Amino acid sequence: MRYLDAEAVENIAIGAAFLGTGGGGDPYIGKMMALSAIKETGPVRLLSIEEVSDDDFFIPAAMMGAPSVLIEKFPKGDEFVRVFDKLSRYLGVENITGTYPMEAGGVNSMIPFVVAAKLGIPLLDCDGMGRAFPELQMTTFNLGGISATPMAITDEKGNIGISETIDNKWTERLARVQTVEMGASSLISIYPSTGKQLKDHGVHNIITFSEKIGEIIRSNELEEAVKLANLLELIGGYELFEGKIVDVIRRVESGFNFGEATIEGLNKDIGSEIKVFFQNENLIAEKDGQPVAMTPDLICMVDLETLMPVTTEALKYGKRVRVLALPCDQKWRTDEGIKTVGPKYFGYNLDYVPVEKLATGGHADV
Amino acid sequence: MRYLDAEAVENIAIGAAFLGTGGGGDPYIGKMMALSAIKETGPVRLLSIEEVSDDDFFIPAAMMGAPSVLIEKFPKGDEFVRVFDKLSRYLGVENITGTYPMEAGGVNSMIPFVVAAKLGIPLLDCDGMGRAFPELQMTTFNLGGISATPMAITDEKGNIGISETIDNKWTERLARVQTVEMGASSLISIYPSTGKQLKDHGVHNIITFSEKIGEIIRSNELEEAVKLANLLELIGGYELFEGKIVDVIRRVESGFNFGEATIEGLNKDIGSEIKVFFQNENLIAEKDGQPVAMTPDLICMVDLETLMPVTTEALKYGKRVRVLALPCDQKWRTDEGIKTVGPKYFGYNLDYVPVEKLATGGHADV
Repeated sequence: MRYLDAEAVENIAIGAAFLGTGGGGDPYIGKMMALSAIKETGPVRLLSIEEVSDDDFFIPAAMMGAPSVLIEKFPKGDEFVRVFDKLSRYLGVENITGTYPMEAGGVNSMIPFVVAAKLGIPLLDCDGMGRAFPELQMTTFNLGGISATPMAITDEKGNIGISETIDNKWTERLARVQTVEMGASSLISIYPSTGKQLKDHGVHNIITFSEKIGEIIRSNELEEAVKLANLLELIGGYELFEGKIVDVIRRVESGFNFGEATIEGLNKDIGSEIKVFFQNENLIAEKDGQPVAMTPDLICMVDLETLMPVTTEALKYGKRVRVLALPCDQKWRTDEGIKTVGPKYFGYNLDYVPVEKLATGGHADV
Repeated sequence: MRYLDAEAVENIAIGAAFLGTGGGGDPYIGKMMALSAIKETGPVRLLSIEEVSDDDFFIPAAMMGAPSVLIEKFPKGDEFVRVFDKLSRYLGVENITGTYPMEAGGVNSMIPFVVAAKLGIPLLDCDGMGRAFPELQMTTFNLGGISATPMAITDEKGNIGISETIDNKWTERLARVQTVEMGASSLISIYPSTGKQLKDHGVHNIITFSEKIGEIIRSNELEEAVKLANLLELIGGYELFEGKIVDVIRRVESGFNFGEATIEGLNKDIGSEIKVFFQNENLIAEKDGQPVAMTPDLICMVDLETLMPVTTEALKYGKRVRVLALPCDQKWRTDEGIKTVGPKYFGYNLDYVPVEKLATGGHADV
């Protein structure tokens, strides 16, 4: 039986922000919330998927909306428990086994810590994406036929609601318009799930995977080159580029952060320019006009020296970054997975090609 | 004890559409729904406010959104009962005494008939406006401090939700964005209320008042001039204008029908031109550039000959109409009432002047 303490929180926040592929919120804000919660209540118990019974019952809590808004609209802290409680009372489930993160991300991996700490329940080592994605139907649960609703939604002012929808795309639509009206961010509890559903359709060990990533990134003992090599080995990933951000275009629209970053190469050998397109999360990386990684594979920007993850809202002119990429969970690489979160869904006229092929010189058909 | 039969439905639909001041939906669609419901189940019992006990409990059901959409997106019929049931189950109230209309209007006075008929409960002779208004916080209940929530909302596809908000303006905001997303119309159950609350803060006898108006308008025995005189006497109202519609500007935006109609005088003695501005409901009437009636007083357009009410979605070039006006319920004529539904709330830079003064030659200060 393992308990997650402050050191674990620090590592998980950084690793989850890395897997958040630019989205999922600022890890500094996330970890401050989680640290403050476990300071009050003590460490949070981590439950591995192997410890779960089929009829256990879990409810997550997450932030929805434009991550950039969170910086100015800091949560009060009671929202997470309020939305979790609302959904559990609505469902009439007496004993909630535990909570889990909806996605990997600096904030969205941390909110379940707050819920777990405040309610004294365990945190399950599983999520519904294995990364972050901008829309609610973009989960491996959805691919497995699990309903996103009943869903609860609240804001920091105290408005609260329940939705039950005819499909998970409608959950996204109705939650999105409420989120925009609430000020471009909200808190949600969604995809209430049994142990069996999480075993069959979740992405497992995401918290411990985040933790290992965070441990490497936060290590002070390793040389830069060794850290990078260790990180790439752990994640089975690639370095696509290193360079300096020379342009960032962004806008907040429909409750999302949209934009693109242009990065100029420091090392001419690996290409002269890369563009990363995002919608909360990084979706497409194009090197000199050719796609080199695309959703659902993970495109992660990190600080050139420290390897600390750089979220899309923190992109700015002059920042020196590395662009890394790694393969997504296999659940995403089905026809249905690619239809749900592949490049075409986001409006890019590209057939999905796995990063393993692209990053090693294969070509995408445009 | 009185039961409302098909003949009563016909009269109430017309009278309520008249009091709907252009909004509240097409009375033909409304009455077809109500007639079909009572054909199945028999007449609906009408409950007068005097028969109500303080701890009785009532839930209304209504359509929200742009009335023009209803014509193309005809309700299936199960939506009204679904939304009513949802709210009553959410509230955990076992015995709902009855239902009541939120506002007077061709459709919104009829939906509670369908609910009453299908559930075998009475219909209370009371509403929350004494006319129709476009937004959810625009009720005499709101002026009386009654919460609009918990509210249930559904669409014809089967999506359903509950909202609990920090105030009634937030109810409007969150219901509106969902309504727009649902296709510019939705069904809601809102302002669940006790008998005491309805006695203290409702507009009473609105159904029987609608019925009397409908009886006059539908009468085949009276001459046109006598009908008009009888109608004006019953409502304590004024004829502002008679003329031909020469221009209609309209748009559907944010789930409302916005627009203005220009009517050219047939009789030069009563002025050369009148403009009626609307947001679902008629809000301001300006004769030759001078306001002659303004919200919250009622501005009602009727067919020149038949006196049948003309809803804003039915306005069209060449139609010959009379523009009538009558005083609103006294509850609206408080400072808070005028702040909530007066001309300034709707963006017109006019101080409210009662129609009794304006229509008899008094002036509004612009």
